[in-house]
Amino acid sequence: MAMDKTRLDVLVEQMKKDGLDGLLMAPSEDMVFLIGSTPMMCERFQAMLITPDGDYCYICNLLYEGEVRNALGQDAKVYSWFDGDGFTPTVKKVFEQKGLIGKKVGVNVTVRAFNTYEISEAMDVTFVSARNLPNESRIFKSDEDLAGLRAVEVITGEAFAVVLPKIKPGITEADVRDMLFEEMAARGGYKQWAIIASGPNGSYPHYHGSERVLQKGDSVVIDFGCVLNKLCSDCTRTIFLGQPSDKQKEVYEIVKRAQAAGCAAAREGAFIPDIDKAARDIIIEAGYGQYFTTRVGHGIGYQIHEAPDIKQSNHRNLERRMAFSIEPGIYITGEFGVRIEDIVFVDGDGETQVLSTQHKDMIVVDC
Amino acid sequence: MAMDKTRLDVLVEQMKKDGLDGLLMAPSEDMVFLIGSTPMMCERFQAMLITPDGDYCYICNLLYEGEVRNALGQDAKVYSWFDGDGFTPTVKKVFEQKGLIGKKVGVNVTVRAFNTYEISEAMDVTFVSARNLPNESRIFKSDEDLAGLRAVEVITGEAFAVVLPKIKPGITEADVRDMLFEEMAARGGYKQWAIIASGPNGSYPHYHGSERVLQKGDSVVIDFGCVLNKLCSDCTRTIFLGQPSDKQKEVYEIVKRAQAAGCAAAREGAFIPDIDKAARDIIIEAGYGQYFTTRVGHGIGYQIHEAPDIKQSNHRNLERRMAFSIEPGIYITGEFGVRIEDIVFVDGDGETQVLSTQHKDMIVVDC
Repeated sequence: MAMDKTRLDVLVEQMKKDGLDGLLMAPSEDMVFLIGSTPMMCERFQAMLITPDGDYCYICNLLYEGEVRNALGQDAKVYSWFDGDGFTPTVKKVFEQKGLIGKKVGVNVTVRAFNTYEISEAMDVTFVSARNLPNESRIFKSDEDLAGLRAVEVITGEAFAVVLPKIKPGITEADVRDMLFEEMAARGGYKQWAIIASGPNGSYPHYHGSERVLQKGDSVVIDFGCVLNKLCSDCTRTIFLGQPSDKQKEVYEIVKRAQAAGCAAAREGAFIPDIDKAARDIIIEAGYGQYFTTRVGHGIGYQIHEAPDIKQSNHRNLERRMAFSIEPGIYITGEFGVRIEDIVFVDGDGETQVLSTQHKDMIVVDC
Repeated sequence: MAMDKTRLDVLVEQMKKDGLDGLLMAPSEDMVFLIGSTPMMCERFQAMLITPDGDYCYICNLLYEGEVRNALGQDAKVYSWFDGDGFTPTVKKVFEQKGLIGKKVGVNVTVRAFNTYEISEAMDVTFVSARNLPNESRIFKSDEDLAGLRAVEVITGEAFAVVLPKIKPGITEADVRDMLFEEMAARGGYKQWAIIASGPNGSYPHYHGSERVLQKGDSVVIDFGCVLNKLCSDCTRTIFLGQPSDKQKEVYEIVKRAQAAGCAAAREGAFIPDIDKAARDIIIEAGYGQYFTTRVGHGIGYQIHEAPDIKQSNHRNLERRMAFSIEPGIYITGEFGVRIEDIVFVDGDGETQVLSTQHKDMIVVDC
């Protein structure tokens, strides 16, 4: 676990393009990508500070100093502050040393606003959003990354296949989640997560309850994943407990067609808004446009959500080595939801590969 | 689950005192305290906006709208934005309606900096840290809260008592964690968390690994807790596997005396830095001052860490109904660590109550 110099070089080149004099990066998947691990973050300010000359140092509370040195190497530049003193004097000392007073510093997505406003009160520095910078530096996956994404989708699919026969009315959403967690863990998958949204809960795309008891007649949106060798999986299937209603059947088939259209449009060189449109148009034409409230997909890799977003406002073209989800859905508040999601990548030869190992035909649990 | 008007009133009074024209509150324990729940937060901007007239609304991505209405009530003012459009136009519309252009808006601790800098690029508004504002509004616990804090410490202590006889060389830190999780869950405790730091890992106060196999001769710092009826527990005991060395014994007894001195100093009316000093002086006098790298304690309640911090720079006096930890430690990098932590509160009659149910004498596991 130490600084990956190749990745740092790419990041620094992007910083220069963006005209930044510095970048503050708080603990995050951005940091895992760069140094192989990330310290725990509590309310105490901590961040790595990177400058365009390729130099970097770490500012943290004294209590994290040992851990940070362990991650960055014993000779790393670590500036620690003590609870009794507060953090801004240390930040000021470092910013002065680095010549950042009066300059423009980007913040990655996990830096907390209250910290940067406290810094701004103590010294003259201009902060700007560097939301996309670390994302841009890892938007193109290596062959090893692509193999890793495939591997983690395989164990995720296996977990689904093992758990599926155990899903039935009477168990809770939490039970489904826990069974998936166990099966992913048994295959080496860590940081497991799941959205299990049954019946009306399925109408919330990011539902995060877990207590509802599954009932006959439910659709169950099962969106889950884990991390294997630092790469993330993300898979959604929607199943039905007992024979679905005509409306549920209709909605499922529309989403399935939309998802296939999104995958088909995801070709090297495609304008990304057109991929969104390919999936969305099918749902709109079927009269359900108002119930498709999200983007079509998101990039994936070291984070579950990273670049490129597959949405209308992302005006760029799909390139080789980009990996992302295609996951249209229909969410009818108070009734039910359907979402189908695959991870897709455009490989080094420009071929589109769909990673998910589970079929997308309607699954009806006999009960 | 809806807005707690009494708590909102207290918050709004504090906002006025702080001279804020608005407060942005992202999903957090601050929000749980106010409305009883908190939506999931992803990279999409969302926050509640509260103004000093007591009015509030919620800005979120369309995909969270149903969930937010469910939490706040169907007639709540929810302004949602769509992935395809970005979030700043919606924020601008709301800020204009609320008369916040050119004004000063506080941010709670979970608002992300990149979001607020993107807002500042799109409109004229001054953000400031409102780190302490929600904390201040809940620093004084109700009798019900105090009973809840006691209840969650009881189940946490029970979990420790059940797991302790199962801790032995050969199992991993993760095994200890999982057993504690299981016992806390069996007693209704959710959101379980634990730091199990054995041997040299004990020298990192916020160690967050879990893979080390416990060995004879280890000290094991066991810092853990959970949530019961929305209130948090936090307890640390350090145990020894096999007969401790003279140095381990010495360090343990020093920390034990320091912890007792901190508890004894925690009386109604005490100047908070003096509580820190009471514990710290014992460690300094014993020659281990450089190894006590943290504050003595932190407030607790709806968050594991909230006001009041027990540290030198918190220049206020201890009042009735404050609840906090007393947790001195000695952390010798590369060797071992010892921490002992109790939750303490000053009750409505001005009496200091130590909530932890487990004794603090040295525990030596025979092996």
